[in-house]
Amino acid sequence: MEFRLAERMNNLKASEIREILKLTENPEIISFAGGLPAPELFPVEKLKEITIQILENDGKAALQYSTTEGYIPLRKIIAEERMKPAGVNVSYENILIINGSQQGLDFSGKIFLDKDDVVICESPSYLGAINAFKAYMPKFVEVPMDDDGMIIEELEKALEANPKAKLIYTIPDFQNPTGKTLSVERRKRLVELAEKYNVPIIEDNPYGELRYEGDRLPAIKSFDTKGLVVYLGTFSKTFCPGYRLGWICASPELLSKYIMVKQGADLQASSISQREAALFMEKYKLDEHINKIKKIYRRRRDLMIETIKKEFPETVKYTYPSGGLFTWISLPEGYDSAEILIKALKEKVAFVPGGSFFPNGGHPNHFRLNYSNMPEEKIVEGIRRLGRVLRNLD
Amino acid sequence: MEFRLAERMNNLKASEIREILKLTENPEIISFAGGLPAPELFPVEKLKEITIQILENDGKAALQYSTTEGYIPLRKIIAEERMKPAGVNVSYENILIINGSQQGLDFSGKIFLDKDDVVICESPSYLGAINAFKAYMPKFVEVPMDDDGMIIEELEKALEANPKAKLIYTIPDFQNPTGKTLSVERRKRLVELAEKYNVPIIEDNPYGELRYEGDRLPAIKSFDTKGLVVYLGTFSKTFCPGYRLGWICASPELLSKYIMVKQGADLQASSISQREAALFMEKYKLDEHINKIKKIYRRRRDLMIETIKKEFPETVKYTYPSGGLFTWISLPEGYDSAEILIKALKEKVAFVPGGSFFPNGGHPNHFRLNYSNMPEEKIVEGIRRLGRVLRNLD
Repeated sequence: MEFRLAERMNNLKASEIREILKLTENPEIISFAGGLPAPELFPVEKLKEITIQILENDGKAALQYSTTEGYIPLRKIIAEERMKPAGVNVSYENILIINGSQQGLDFSGKIFLDKDDVVICESPSYLGAINAFKAYMPKFVEVPMDDDGMIIEELEKALEANPKAKLIYTIPDFQNPTGKTLSVERRKRLVELAEKYNVPIIEDNPYGELRYEGDRLPAIKSFDTKGLVVYLGTFSKTFCPGYRLGWICASPELLSKYIMVKQGADLQASSISQREAALFMEKYKLDEHINKIKKIYRRRRDLMIETIKKEFPETVKYTYPSGGLFTWISLPEGYDSAEILIKALKEKVAFVPGGSFFPNGGHPNHFRLNYSNMPEEKIVEGIRRLGRVLRNLD
Repeated sequence: MEFRLAERMNNLKASEIREILKLTENPEIISFAGGLPAPELFPVEKLKEITIQILENDGKAALQYSTTEGYIPLRKIIAEERMKPAGVNVSYENILIINGSQQGLDFSGKIFLDKDDVVICESPSYLGAINAFKAYMPKFVEVPMDDDGMIIEELEKALEANPKAKLIYTIPDFQNPTGKTLSVERRKRLVELAEKYNVPIIEDNPYGELRYEGDRLPAIKSFDTKGLVVYLGTFSKTFCPGYRLGWICASPELLSKYIMVKQGADLQASSISQREAALFMEKYKLDEHINKIKKIYRRRRDLMIETIKKEFPETVKYTYPSGGLFTWISLPEGYDSAEILIKALKEKVAFVPGGSFFPNGGHPNHFRLNYSNMPEEKIVEGIRRLGRVLRNLD
């Protein structure tokens, strides 16, 4: 049967990461492919106790429909405990609960993008955001990065060339896929430019709270005086991804658009999961839990970088992330990481080839490594295997 | 700040039901407005036991990311226990888990609809579907109904006039908002017409399992030999809406499009909620739980209809639903149910005005009553109050 689909469907393909993740369900494979948190850190015992408490005291409401905006105690906790430390002074009325920040990307596309509208993003950028936006058929304008993130002069050129751009999309902290962080000075300049051109910024910040050295940087949203920045947060990296809980922080005016879109898209986030997250954060300090996570991830990052230094050929470059989950590997031009992946899978080690992170294609000579999900001995063994593959390339 | 939004945002407005539901949070108001299930029937105790079991035996996986397609044991249970009794012989590979069937409506719009494409639907139709589709800017062609649902001769005329229609959207069982059911003969003819014109059918079936008399009718999907029917199911009415769990049942070819769209939209449904639902349905029979629900809702329906007979003026018509959650009230032409609602709210009773259920407007002289969410004494008292309002109209 030949279906008459919407034009946008020509633009979409299955996420390469998710397809690779399926291969890596084989437990023999050491996978640096996903962006998965370490499951041994999930607070399983505490969540048992919390779920019992919720079902005993508030079971009917927890299992019933609730408002689109989300559970007010959770929205308050997010405003107070997650946004204020990032320098963003907001109340719960600035917060909408969504199913992980991926949903905020889809909604941003839906709210802002008509066909052929321009999205300005880092080069490379998060594959899941590229795919979410592609459903709305925009053009992507990529802005090169250096060690301090998006190069602001290049952003300015992009805005001059595309003054009607609809969105600037950025992951300022420990960017996916490069692990790079946008400097404070550049955050300020970014907001100035966004105001000058009246282009909203989508600040996608899943990793900012996972910093392993130095102080947390103020969110881009903290410099926003005109309501132009939409901040996307998530509990997937700092709590548990299985609940699918994230949030949008925006001016009430813009947030009302997201609420309307959420109504049409799936009515609301899970009533019970929102209560579970809220009660966990009332009884225990999420920051203490995050500190445990950081300690382990820091060690894994150190071990991965040390082993890369020892095992990878000198022509191969890597980034040194001060937080987050990823390092970005760059081979000399001419190499194709998709082909290298085939060789790596024979050695039972996996990563994500870099090409899909560039919305306009090209750049096959990079790949992304995740260090949060594998135990230490597997990190060493996996990087050794990868080193062997890389040293044996022609 | 003036934002440059996507054109589709001109089409959207906040759901009238959700706005009314906010008013009805006042516990003094007797609300027949929502489509909420009765919370006293939620299996709170059993879910406590089940959640403990999952967190003890499978906590790490339950809190981690999982596949977009969904948890295989739940998909198998849906194929076996929910689809087969509706006459649909499929395997778990035909099932995608989503966040309630509302998400299936949004995805259907995304997959099929370009601007100005035609969606054929019942007149009236489900407000949430109209809003979900509106984001993709289609034209709606409404097909009149009689007591046996959509009138097939009228559908045929609509298809002749719009041979390039992209979707036929229908709620065949105990339709929202009318409570009407499409006859078996018409289901067969509907599929024949869809095949003739190569137009996919979105069969939205949240209520089919809540039948209070007679035998369950075979789903439209059961007559589908060419993969043209997409069936949307949900646990929101038969289990608990708070988990946000529904499913799409479609041919693998079409389902692959939905999976791709789900990836971009929010990656996956909640890992832990899917396990909770699956284990509940393994340990207990969902059908037994549904039987309990049906017993109570049947009584509430009977009571509402009896009280309507006694209390409403004779000029006011109502439907007699053999299942589901709603009856549809029709006043003589010239009355405006939105104005009546204002008077009803003064009497502390609420309903949803009918106008929003007609995508092309008009028809203000109807409204929808829900009987599942209020205890018996409130049903009697609420209908009495409404009767008073209706008898006092000019």
